[in-house]
Amino acid sequence: MARTGGPTGPTLAIVAREARVSVPTASKVVNGRADVAPETRRRVTEALDRLGYVRRPRAGATGRTSSLVDVVLHSLDSSWSGAVLHGVEAAAAEAGLDLVVSAGLAGPRGYGPGRGRLHRLAARGSAGALFSRAELTPSQYAWLAQHRIPFVLIDPVVEPPPGVVWVGADDIGGGAAATRHLLGLGHRRIAVLGGHRHRLATAARIAGHRAALNAAGVPHRPEYERYAGLTPAGARRHALELLALPEPPTALAVCSDTMALAVYEAAAERGLRVPGDLCVVGFDDLPESRWAAPALTTVRRPLSDMAGTALRLLVAPAAEDPPAPRRTRLPTRLVVRASTAPAPG
Amino acid sequence: MARTGGPTGPTLAIVAREARVSVPTASKVVNGRADVAPETRRRVTEALDRLGYVRRPRAGATGRTSSLVDVVLHSLDSSWSGAVLHGVEAAAAEAGLDLVVSAGLAGPRGYGPGRGRLHRLAARGSAGALFSRAELTPSQYAWLAQHRIPFVLIDPVVEPPPGVVWVGADDIGGGAAATRHLLGLGHRRIAVLGGHRHRLATAARIAGHRAALNAAGVPHRPEYERYAGLTPAGARRHALELLALPEPPTALAVCSDTMALAVYEAAAERGLRVPGDLCVVGFDDLPESRWAAPALTTVRRPLSDMAGTALRLLVAPAAEDPPAPRRTRLPTRLVVRASTAPAPG
Repeated sequence: MARTGGPTGPTLAIVAREARVSVPTASKVVNGRADVAPETRRRVTEALDRLGYVRRPRAGATGRTSSLVDVVLHSLDSSWSGAVLHGVEAAAAEAGLDLVVSAGLAGPRGYGPGRGRLHRLAARGSAGALFSRAELTPSQYAWLAQHRIPFVLIDPVVEPPPGVVWVGADDIGGGAAATRHLLGLGHRRIAVLGGHRHRLATAARIAGHRAALNAAGVPHRPEYERYAGLTPAGARRHALELLALPEPPTALAVCSDTMALAVYEAAAERGLRVPGDLCVVGFDDLPESRWAAPALTTVRRPLSDMAGTALRLLVAPAAEDPPAPRRTRLPTRLVVRASTAPAPG
Repeated sequence: MARTGGPTGPTLAIVAREARVSVPTASKVVNGRADVAPETRRRVTEALDRLGYVRRPRAGATGRTSSLVDVVLHSLDSSWSGAVLHGVEAAAAEAGLDLVVSAGLAGPRGYGPGRGRLHRLAARGSAGALFSRAELTPSQYAWLAQHRIPFVLIDPVVEPPPGVVWVGADDIGGGAAATRHLLGLGHRRIAVLGGHRHRLATAARIAGHRAALNAAGVPHRPEYERYAGLTPAGARRHALELLALPEPPTALAVCSDTMALAVYEAAAERGLRVPGDLCVVGFDDLPESRWAAPALTTVRRPLSDMAGTALRLLVAPAAEDPPAPRRTRLPTRLVVRASTAPAPG
């Protein structure tokens, strides 16, 4: 969208002057366009950060009268999506809005809304859009700006362009809490299993893990840090490799519950019991984690709250300035169940 | 909606003449209104059935040009709802339609759309509505008719008024399959745990159970048939009572997976192992059933297919007559996992 501040923050013109570029160039950077020289992008990004520029979504302030808000999710048949929808719907009901829900399509770089959906969204004058776990392409960002569609990202997969408003969870804190819990149980050989190395969620959880090890004076062992690409098959394979090391870990901090449950299978294949021979901590707290055997110790991310917060940021009336924060990270919480136990010996 | 047949079926006027009532009276019955004498309602219902009257939803034929279809679900944060949404969304995407999704509100008789939602639905000219696991009140049926909103029910909780189009599953067949499976394992002391005695799902599953017992010449024991109200707490309590009988069952056919998992807890409380001491069969095949310990043998209901079928019935173009069937029941399928085993002895 093209709104650029107003009384509560710098306009894009001020940002452009600070960065010594034209307004259209600054706009390109804000919209994630690819046709900007790296050095120019760096200057603009720094100016955006320095000046605290916020491309605030203002569904309540754009004169849009539609009672519809669009929500695009990665997929619909997961408990993850259910928690997100539950939170958005409750907040929408409170605001007297209706939700248009769709599943994203796989694109060249990730998941986002399909072409037809975007056109219908614009044609019916949607009050705004929420994208859950999306990875929008530069042309999708540009399209949203061009059609002046306010939007907020829920739990983006990669770092969004500067100025984009998004809601996530404190994954660094969660990653640290998981590893501190294992350290507190006496474990020292603690491996970590991430998804994709360069994605926000994994990067944050692994940063928290390393910080916790560091604070406890436990050296970080490169062979204990693995990236399994978020699939259960990848998690199983990497867990088997870890368990085959000359000095295998006694505990495994995993970056998603789904992957953690695949680690259970790998342990069973090697004849190891959880938690007696291998402790496992998950991440997310999906409903199935309670039913797993043993019930999974995990880090709860408040998905419904994150989603509700995103809806409220999207439709907050302009009168309610202060400017919306660009990133909101809601707290995570360790949930101790039966998959962790004191270290052997 | 007020369309009443056309070239492909009897009009409401013909039904009224057959039943010897006025057209408004016949209309009241079709719309589930309460202000009809029981004897009159019986005559009209019989005429509707005899003549094969179909109050066909015709989103494609009402001149509605909206690309929006409403879906009202019981709640959004369950794997049940996820499966329904997944199926509706895929069918909607195929038809170039967008879904407005909302969670139903508790009303005097069950769950249905809230007042505000219904008004917004009418105001924006929704192409039609799907109600999943809803229990609409007579005034909600009347409202839909008055505003000429085409609608289809997915898995209704109670028998809808005649002429209403709905999609369910073959729960009688599923109930029979569950009990036949237990009979085949040599069990003879098989109890059944239903939800609400007068609701469609439980009634069908218990009818299937009784039919299977009957076909095998195993007497039906009244003390083995229980109604636990669909809650985990109720299931646990009734399971404990069954296990405390002088001659306790060796197997339990349960009318939902959620209740079946509560039966696991009751068995554990009594120090009984599943399936060694007590076999358990669920119903639905929710994702958590795979992760339960032991993995739950259950009856799979094709929720996504049911939901997709409902969407297609809603938007089928009028050109595609033959008239839509009033009830579509998709097949269920027994999924054998680890919670059932041969009977002891």
